[in-house]
Amino acid sequence: MYTITNDIDVRDMARGAVLLGSGGGGDPYVGELYLRNQLAEGRSPNIIKASELADDAFVVSIAGVGAPTVIIEHLVSTHTLLRLLEASETFYGRKIDALISAEIGGVNSMFPLALGTRAGIPVVDGDGMGRAFPHLEMTTFGVYGCAATPSVLMDDSGNVVHVHTTTNRIAEDVVRSVCASLGSMIFGSFYPMSGRQVKQLTVHDTVTHTLEIGRRIRAARESQLDPVKGVLQFLDAPAQGRYARELFNGRIVDVVHETRDGWHWGYVLISSGAGREPEFRIEIQNEYLVARHNGKTVTIVPDLIAILDAESAEPLTAEMLAYGQRVRVIGYSAAPIMRRPECLKVFGPRLFGIDEDFRPVEQLRAAE
Amino acid sequence: MYTITNDIDVRDMARGAVLLGSGGGGDPYVGELYLRNQLAEGRSPNIIKASELADDAFVVSIAGVGAPTVIIEHLVSTHTLLRLLEASETFYGRKIDALISAEIGGVNSMFPLALGTRAGIPVVDGDGMGRAFPHLEMTTFGVYGCAATPSVLMDDSGNVVHVHTTTNRIAEDVVRSVCASLGSMIFGSFYPMSGRQVKQLTVHDTVTHTLEIGRRIRAARESQLDPVKGVLQFLDAPAQGRYARELFNGRIVDVVHETRDGWHWGYVLISSGAGREPEFRIEIQNEYLVARHNGKTVTIVPDLIAILDAESAEPLTAEMLAYGQRVRVIGYSAAPIMRRPECLKVFGPRLFGIDEDFRPVEQLRAAE
Repeated sequence: MYTITNDIDVRDMARGAVLLGSGGGGDPYVGELYLRNQLAEGRSPNIIKASELADDAFVVSIAGVGAPTVIIEHLVSTHTLLRLLEASETFYGRKIDALISAEIGGVNSMFPLALGTRAGIPVVDGDGMGRAFPHLEMTTFGVYGCAATPSVLMDDSGNVVHVHTTTNRIAEDVVRSVCASLGSMIFGSFYPMSGRQVKQLTVHDTVTHTLEIGRRIRAARESQLDPVKGVLQFLDAPAQGRYARELFNGRIVDVVHETRDGWHWGYVLISSGAGREPEFRIEIQNEYLVARHNGKTVTIVPDLIAILDAESAEPLTAEMLAYGQRVRVIGYSAAPIMRRPECLKVFGPRLFGIDEDFRPVEQLRAAE
Repeated sequence: MYTITNDIDVRDMARGAVLLGSGGGGDPYVGELYLRNQLAEGRSPNIIKASELADDAFVVSIAGVGAPTVIIEHLVSTHTLLRLLEASETFYGRKIDALISAEIGGVNSMFPLALGTRAGIPVVDGDGMGRAFPHLEMTTFGVYGCAATPSVLMDDSGNVVHVHTTTNRIAEDVVRSVCASLGSMIFGSFYPMSGRQVKQLTVHDTVTHTLEIGRRIRAARESQLDPVKGVLQFLDAPAQGRYARELFNGRIVDVVHETRDGWHWGYVLISSGAGREPEFRIEIQNEYLVARHNGKTVTIVPDLIAILDAESAEPLTAEMLAYGQRVRVIGYSAAPIMRRPECLKVFGPRLFGIDEDFRPVEQLRAAE
């Protein structure tokens, strides 16, 4: 049984969350600090499997909403998270039996753990994305019929908004607008679910998976092994239907990004130094969405792209990329549930304006 | 005792509401149609004085929110207003004893009347602006300490949002954002108040005032008298601390407006034809905010500016202005309560980015 008992675990968890963020989801650092505070006060999270939940248990996702660049600058208030929990229980009219992350990639891996630890509520080992996505409706929860609302939104100043929309896409629009009007950082409770729903609609075991990713990188470093190889050995797991490969190794020769309408846009060019032109390009819309090698797509959303520091294998969010960095790029197949046709209709390439069908990373690599 | 029993009354009320809208507040036409339907079905509004309310009565403002140009294109659904009423009573946890208009100028004069008539709930003879303003916080209710929220917002598709903010200014930002995310037209309940508060915080008697404005214009027309003079005789009432004058008579030679971020911006130039340059200019930000004659301010917000068709004295909203129209402009002092220093801090000229202090229209005229 995995758990998180010390700062090394928290650091491992955060490292794994950045890798699964596929460039987005925000730096887990603020959540990490908060979780470390909880441990320092003698608390530790109770991470449970979905199968341990009673069918009629009441489970809610707790998430921060905001532009990644804003989240980084924002201090997380214990007070706000606890008030959100209390307001949510009042609003839903029942006790919350467990929390679940909607998005295991990035900072939203941490908030349910931090709040669950503080409030003594179990956290489900799973999430709704198995990675990070920019929109609230882009979850397996939503794809398989769970409504993102009713929701309680709250900011640090005590402004509270309840949202109850007819579709998850409208929920995304309303929540994003409220977020912008309240200074670009809010917390919310989303996807109220029964235990039975959690068992059916979740990308399972992603909390422990995240933790293990961070551990493998650290363990390889400590053993003087190549940490990129170390984590690939764990990620590439045919028995679980997962595939992972190193796609490219080179130096960042151009990185263009800007925050527009609360979103992070850009691209990064990586060169091996062998030719005159950089060979490798990754498109960014909050997350790394598509990686192309000499113009040929090698990994595309919802499969994951991770950019790691070439030496330490520390995963890098899009905000961390800088000119001249030596990096290695990993392509990692999404969890099998995420690649189903009904899922691709909600978070496949075309939903991001990419005029290309999804093709699994292992097929793209085989065709190279 | 005034009431509204037939289509002529409704038309009079709508005409008065456009005049008090000072160019903004939206065309009452959609509300007018709805109110006429209620009358046709045998219902009529119960308009009561604030003094008739019990001190512990529960009163709520019902208003449409959206860009005026969108409101005009939008059909009002009875179903939505009735659902809003029901959702509000559930949300506030008590029966609503009376409705009040937050904004007597424009379309929001009509919605409380229409809903009150349909649901058999009295409507208070008064409002929070005595005119139209573009922002939710710009009310005497707010100036004198009543919170605009908790609010229930609803659109025609059944999306529902509850808003509970720490300030009325934040409420405006959140409500406006939610409105934009839901297609730019929503209805909401605002400023929940006790009967005692209504008595203290209201611009009184503005429903019957609006109706009488429309009646005076119609009566003068029917008697072949000048309808502009007819309405001025009513508006200019020193005993009530009100002053009204015709400011200018001419032809529209330029009208510039656009809808930007959900707001209506522009100006209108009016010429008497006597000189080479148009002498009269009115700045528009949803409402007519400041009128200048040869560059000299002659009326400034919160005092009212009305542009009337030169022949019929039909009041014109900013959207109705067109090149070549012959118009007459009226300056009308705001209700005395609206001119107090504490009010000018919330809806005086500087709140609209006008670098000029408020001066009463009667003083500006005397100085001319």
